Amino acid sequence: MNGAESLVRTLVGGGVDVTFTNPGTSEMHFVAALDRVDGMRCVLCLFEGVATGAADGYARMAGKPAATLLHLGPGLGNALANVHNAKKAHSPMINVVGDHAIAHKRYDSPLTSDIETLARPMSHWVRTGASSMTVAMDGCDAIVEARRAPGRIATLILPADTAWGEGCGAIAVPPQRGRAKVDEASVRDAATVAKLGPGTMLLIGDAGLRGGALAWASRISAKTGCRLMAPGANARVERGAGRVSIGRVPYPVEQALALLADVKHLVLVGAPPPVAFFAYPGKPSVTTPPGCAISTLAEVGEDIADALVRLADAVGATKTAPVFAKARTPALPTDQTLDPATIGAVVGALIPEGAIICDESVTTGRAFFATTEGAPPHDWLQLTGGAIGEGMPMAVGAAIACPDRKVINLEADGSAMYTVQALWTQAREKLNVLTIIWANRAYRILRNELAAVGAENPGRKAHDMLSLDNPAIDWVSLARGMGVDACRVTTSDAFAKAMKAGLAETGPYLIEVVI
Amino acid sequence: MNGAESLVRTLVGGGVDVTFTNPGTSEMHFVAALDRVDGMRCVLCLFEGVATGAADGYARMAGKPAATLLHLGPGLGNALANVHNAKKAHSPMINVVGDHAIAHKRYDSPLTSDIETLARPMSHWVRTGASSMTVAMDGCDAIVEARRAPGRIATLILPADTAWGEGCGAIAVPPQRGRAKVDEASVRDAATVAKLGPGTMLLIGDAGLRGGALAWASRISAKTGCRLMAPGANARVERGAGRVSIGRVPYPVEQALALLADVKHLVLVGAPPPVAFFAYPGKPSVTTPPGCAISTLAEVGEDIADALVRLADAVGATKTAPVFAKARTPALPTDQTLDPATIGAVVGALIPEGAIICDESVTTGRAFFATTEGAPPHDWLQLTGGAIGEGMPMAVGAAIACPDRKVINLEADGSAMYTVQALWTQAREKLNVLTIIWANRAYRILRNELAAVGAENPGRKAHDMLSLDNPAIDWVSLARGMGVDACRVTTSDAFAKAMKAGLAETGPYLIEVVI
Repeated sequence: MNGAESLVRTLVGGGVDVTFTNPGTSEMHFVAALDRVDGMRCVLCLFEGVATGAADGYARMAGKPAATLLHLGPGLGNALANVHNAKKAHSPMINVVGDHAIAHKRYDSPLTSDIETLARPMSHWVRTGASSMTVAMDGCDAIVEARRAPGRIATLILPADTAWGEGCGAIAVPPQRGRAKVDEASVRDAATVAKLGPGTMLLIGDAGLRGGALAWASRISAKTGCRLMAPGANARVERGAGRVSIGRVPYPVEQALALLADVKHLVLVGAPPPVAFFAYPGKPSVTTPPGCAISTLAEVGEDIADALVRLADAVGATKTAPVFAKARTPALPTDQTLDPATIGAVVGALIPEGAIICDESVTTGRAFFATTEGAPPHDWLQLTGGAIGEGMPMAVGAAIACPDRKVINLEADGSAMYTVQALWTQAREKLNVLTIIWANRAYRILRNELAAVGAENPGRKAHDMLSLDNPAIDWVSLARGMGVDACRVTTSDAFAKAMKAGLAETGPYLIEVVI
Repeated sequence: MNGAESLVRTLVGGGVDVTFTNPGTSEMHFVAALDRVDGMRCVLCLFEGVATGAADGYARMAGKPAATLLHLGPGLGNALANVHNAKKAHSPMINVVGDHAIAHKRYDSPLTSDIETLARPMSHWVRTGASSMTVAMDGCDAIVEARRAPGRIATLILPADTAWGEGCGAIAVPPQRGRAKVDEASVRDAATVAKLGPGTMLLIGDAGLRGGALAWASRISAKTGCRLMAPGANARVERGAGRVSIGRVPYPVEQALALLADVKHLVLVGAPPPVAFFAYPGKPSVTTPPGCAISTLAEVGEDIADALVRLADAVGATKTAPVFAKARTPALPTDQTLDPATIGAVVGALIPEGAIICDESVTTGRAFFATTEGAPPHDWLQLTGGAIGEGMPMAVGAAIACPDRKVINLEADGSAMYTVQALWTQAREKLNVLTIIWANRAYRILRNELAAVGAENPGRKAHDMLSLDNPAIDWVSLARGMGVDACRVTTSDAFAKAMKAGLAETGPYLIEVVI
């Protein structure tokens, strides 16, 4: 058994049974091994950012890593933006990056580059395979590293000869370790400030945004009067009717400052301290008010659910009833206007039970949380690292992780173009994904940002650099070109009708909503 | 005047008057400065790899650097594959990568990453701006570095506050230095081996592949009997009727070995020693025969034209007539078959004078050099770094550098998908680009490679990972979705007719050739 097959058998044995691939010559033995070994699903992507975005979406929903298969330094380069997003989402991921055979590297042939250096900024763990006999152990180590809580990026560089040379067979991967419990002092300190009431806010991220953990947070809030909040962007929030509804810190700095203005004590529960996404002249980077005391109940990756149970106990809230969102969906709009309010109403009215929302709506979607909190229970996945171009790939991965659930990708037109090749994979794999493109034909967020940084009165050149309307992208044509059926709507009635039709499909469908 | 405007005025003053942009928030002051300053053409790209591939194509034809404007680490990541290609093409390029304001970086907000480390593997020069007062000097240094022969990649990271803070005004950029002359000993040594005749080969790259330099090489060959050859992939070859025709070292290792088998003395003239693109089990990396003596007349970046003139003098060839290709175009095929021969005949018959061929044909195009050597004079630009996804962006840049010439992009379907967003920029800028897609609906090169590495009898999974036929990409629909008119052909007659029509257009047009 060669090194490649030893590695693939190690991955499958370690529970890594999906690979999102965009291979090249140096990966051909790995491809051949994927072919021979049962139990590995291979999903071809026509661009590497689709592969890594899909692995991120998969990990968020499956709770375990997928592998990606990438071709040397440039292939890894193309993959990095969504590796960045996955890293910020704390998603486990195993990138297998083919490289030249070890003896060939010294010749500096055209595709040679320093892959390790490229990999390091977006990876927690990087290793280059040294021989075909040890590469299965490298794969085992990659799985162990990727699964370290809360989830890490492991990048294994695979010189071609470590794939084609004689291997050692599959290595047994040790079982995954559980999350570390927080210490008792952290719980006690958090209890003290939680009891201070509305001046205290629990900022909850990571696994704290699953339904069970949020229910415990709600008990604590109901008992003490302290407030609950989530960061602006989150890997996965379980929400909808019968679950606890939690707000998010807004993206615009002024709104974040206003929301946090009267917080005296901020308790971090698997979340980083709130800061502005970008810096702006004359505006603060830190969005908590001066004098706000910040403490930590649980670090990202610690056992947040357990910490919240213990905190509830410490504040005497174990028997307090949590506050759940009531089942309540907006009425479908009766006029024809397409604006944020009517769009939000249609989405809120029609989300089906068990839907997975992959949200890269950017400006258009800021109001969606409000109109959807009473929808049937669903998961909401956001862009965590700010590198636009993740929504469509994430939908691919989520649909492969959860084939019996509907995936709804709420997608800005500007963002969608970065990884538009994902539609082809959706068609090939017949994925149950409804893509809704908000076609405002602009990088609208940048128009706001141009004003926010104080760059006033933009002229024609600046306007042109933020506009996508010349030519307008025809999303119906684009989608059909990659095998995904599609329609275009310009009224709320038509949008509601199209969304119902799209939800009834079992394969991919795309709606271009011209706004 | 703020730092951004000081930098833009420095760039324009230094002859950098085109920027391929994909900006974000941290670049908004730079965008505003581009807006205010006359003389800078801004070309919006909807994916960063389009921007850098375009800058490469521009540099190859304009002979000077363009700038790119990219958004933090993930934006740079998306750009890297084509920066890699540009680096291997020795194209000058100035990447301006926006970053968070210096004081904001410590907060690790979501888009934070280690941009310098990401930039280094694909750049010759990397600097992060330290203050708004010095950033114009950084820009000046970037231009000087980018223009160092033969052409280098300069990456300037621009923290947002170095753009918005008070700047120092424009800095005058020193004039470009000429290429260094080779020393006399190199010429003398090369003359000695050139005179040995057919056992000697001059391997000519870089500026040696322009018409004038090649004419001198041809005189040397005609006088001494030594052979001329070019590397497998070259940034730019001036060729066609009335110019010297030069062969290339083939990509398949066996063919390269056969071509070089009887070379006793190889003289490098702005080219690296020939090596296999990839390693294969049991095949050599070095494609020159054992015992072949390799010497250097000129390094890449030295004054190759001058070296060839002096070598011609040293071998007594100054008055020898060079051998020019005769004007001779293939007859248009009379049957309907579309195969490499008929495709090559159509292309060879119809290339117009002054055309710029951006060739990313991969497997389909290996025979094109033979059928086109007697076509009217034209330039041939190839993929130099092996990172597929450069053809369409390169065509964008070439068309902007040479608006009065026809750009023909010969493009493989698999490669085209990586940077398909380039079509939108072609439509927006109304670029004179004819794109011809060879739709074999496969990563055909990889099918060959799978066999070449000895991975035999691929099964369904391996086959699926190398096939693009399920679903087949509808290139007509895809192109129209981005505002480029298109047609599909399945016979050689229809191809010839469509190519004539496409050549008659002054804006972009796409032909899908189903093969």
